[in-house]
Amino acid sequence: MHKKLFIPGPVEVRPEVLEQMAQPLIGHRSKEASSLQKRISNNLRKVFFTNSEILLSTTSGSGLMEGAIRSCTAKRAAVFSVGAFGKRWYDMAVSNNVPADLFEVEMGQAINAEMVNDVLKTGKYDLIAVTHNETSTGVMNPIDEIGEIVKKYDDIIFIVDAVSSAAGTKIEVDKWGIDICITSSQKALGLPPGISLCTFSQRAKERAEKVKNRGTYLDLLSLYNYIQKKDYQYPSTPSISHMFALDYQLDYILNKEGLENRFNRHLELAKVVRNWAKKYFDLFADENHLSNTLTTVKNTRNIDISELNKELGKRGFVISNGYGSLKDKTFRIAHMADCTMEDLEELLVNINDILGLD
Amino acid sequence: MHKKLFIPGPVEVRPEVLEQMAQPLIGHRSKEASSLQKRISNNLRKVFFTNSEILLSTTSGSGLMEGAIRSCTAKRAAVFSVGAFGKRWYDMAVSNNVPADLFEVEMGQAINAEMVNDVLKTGKYDLIAVTHNETSTGVMNPIDEIGEIVKKYDDIIFIVDAVSSAAGTKIEVDKWGIDICITSSQKALGLPPGISLCTFSQRAKERAEKVKNRGTYLDLLSLYNYIQKKDYQYPSTPSISHMFALDYQLDYILNKEGLENRFNRHLELAKVVRNWAKKYFDLFADENHLSNTLTTVKNTRNIDISELNKELGKRGFVISNGYGSLKDKTFRIAHMADCTMEDLEELLVNINDILGLD
Repeated sequence: MHKKLFIPGPVEVRPEVLEQMAQPLIGHRSKEASSLQKRISNNLRKVFFTNSEILLSTTSGSGLMEGAIRSCTAKRAAVFSVGAFGKRWYDMAVSNNVPADLFEVEMGQAINAEMVNDVLKTGKYDLIAVTHNETSTGVMNPIDEIGEIVKKYDDIIFIVDAVSSAAGTKIEVDKWGIDICITSSQKALGLPPGISLCTFSQRAKERAEKVKNRGTYLDLLSLYNYIQKKDYQYPSTPSISHMFALDYQLDYILNKEGLENRFNRHLELAKVVRNWAKKYFDLFADENHLSNTLTTVKNTRNIDISELNKELGKRGFVISNGYGSLKDKTFRIAHMADCTMEDLEELLVNINDILGLD
Repeated sequence: MHKKLFIPGPVEVRPEVLEQMAQPLIGHRSKEASSLQKRISNNLRKVFFTNSEILLSTTSGSGLMEGAIRSCTAKRAAVFSVGAFGKRWYDMAVSNNVPADLFEVEMGQAINAEMVNDVLKTGKYDLIAVTHNETSTGVMNPIDEIGEIVKKYDDIIFIVDAVSSAAGTKIEVDKWGIDICITSSQKALGLPPGISLCTFSQRAKERAEKVKNRGTYLDLLSLYNYIQKKDYQYPSTPSISHMFALDYQLDYILNKEGLENRFNRHLELAKVVRNWAKKYFDLFADENHLSNTLTTVKNTRNIDISELNKELGKRGFVISNGYGSLKDKTFRIAHMADCTMEDLEELLVNINDILGLD
């Protein structure tokens, strides 16, 4: 039996989108491949509210995160972490010998703009990396406020991990001053895992031109230059099946559901889970910075989460246990992509039933 | 109208395989994901005639090529190139600040074992990189003979780009002494593009342990260590859809068609194209080192290749023009993956008809 996925990626994918993955292939050096990528890029610019170039990578979001911090740090990177994925970004810098410092806040808290200001005013950094939506804690950082601070400084490249939020909540890339905004297919975009994509500003391009040893496959500047020269074809063979699915889904998001409706639906779903969590458990994250795409629930009843998931599995659902050190202390319910209110309520009714709540 | 692909990747994919790409997703941290990868790894070991570990990467073959040369060169790499893809490997090393030298032969020729011996006996190198099947020239290098030379030296890591040959011709990884043998989904395996995979020997693992700054996403040692620790699950979300398709196709290759039959079919297809090429044009590559998966035809009649492809397109076929500097001087017909003799003969009849041959 298929289990409906309420985990923070891979998400449940609509059958019509899955069908696109099964389309016969086309050559990646064909005119059709160029048109396909151009249409995808134009539509993604709308999702991200940007005029920047769009880069597609046949990797998970981690591939582009590594590429971004390596390609665009000339001096030193300041990585702000609110959980596991922020820390991972710092580790990527270190593994590439990119000078970087890690600034962490307590799990469940958000980064605030003053903290960023204090770090940037040291003058040591030329890149700042921030997680928008932290999948381990359920925190959504105030990227708009952080962006205002970053703008005060010259020549800081602002890179944002929006892997688990983009297309599920509004991110105004240009207005917020984001140079590289990264997301992945298997989250709020509602596609199978396998590709990631980002915005890439002119400032980011100019910075990368000054950085040596950027590698090849994950080098964002190489990707950028190649698609300019070769009419939006990629240096290596991309996952064309994912491109078909992404193209189809972007049309749905922009022209069928509508972007604002999509963002609102995510917020409504989030509210339902938050209220449920507050009634029976508690929220793990700071209430002023809750994620709109997933909720991390504090396991105040000390339930056996893997036992709950086993029972849910028999009924055709799956949620996530806590991440890393939060494994038993929290559990996570994702409410992103094309999840409907009906789907979500069905899940919660089943959890209540299994746990004998209410 | 869909055009049947006779280009050297992406290849034509069987409808049953495409259907697997549309399966509903599973969590990448589930027991099912572990079982899926274990089955894939066991079956790939049979395809590669090896006991080495198998690593899967959500990248094109280029991702693993870069990972291999970066992860496993501690001293200096010797890259042997017979065309565009060999050269690319060298460029990847340079872009990562990995010390490397490039050894090239004339386009259309193969690497010979003596040449490798001469290079290795300088004592300067601790890794050798060789393209098995060069897609630009249609040359297949004698990896078995080169392997015999490599074995004479201590502590040389032997990495092979078998992107466009593995599963289409026999590669005996352990017997030939290959430490890392790399292939990609969209070639002779007969899958859509989007993942790549390689064998990874204990010697390669031990070497990588001595190399610093291997990066993260493309670091083969990180992949290796993670799958050992986490029951064959990957550090980042892999392309599960491709894993479904690969799993299905490996069962077909091993248990329905049979490996030896598959290799023989590729050879029979190759012979037909070679004979056709010799009758009407000429072969570009050295006749002693012809590829079994694609044929590069010397354009002795000076035909307009893009015009030919345009006409073929109207009839539902597509072949490749020459690569890079060989663009108009050659054209390429791929005969790999699940291409049948009937498919191939239909193509050649149509080419003859368009060109008014015979």
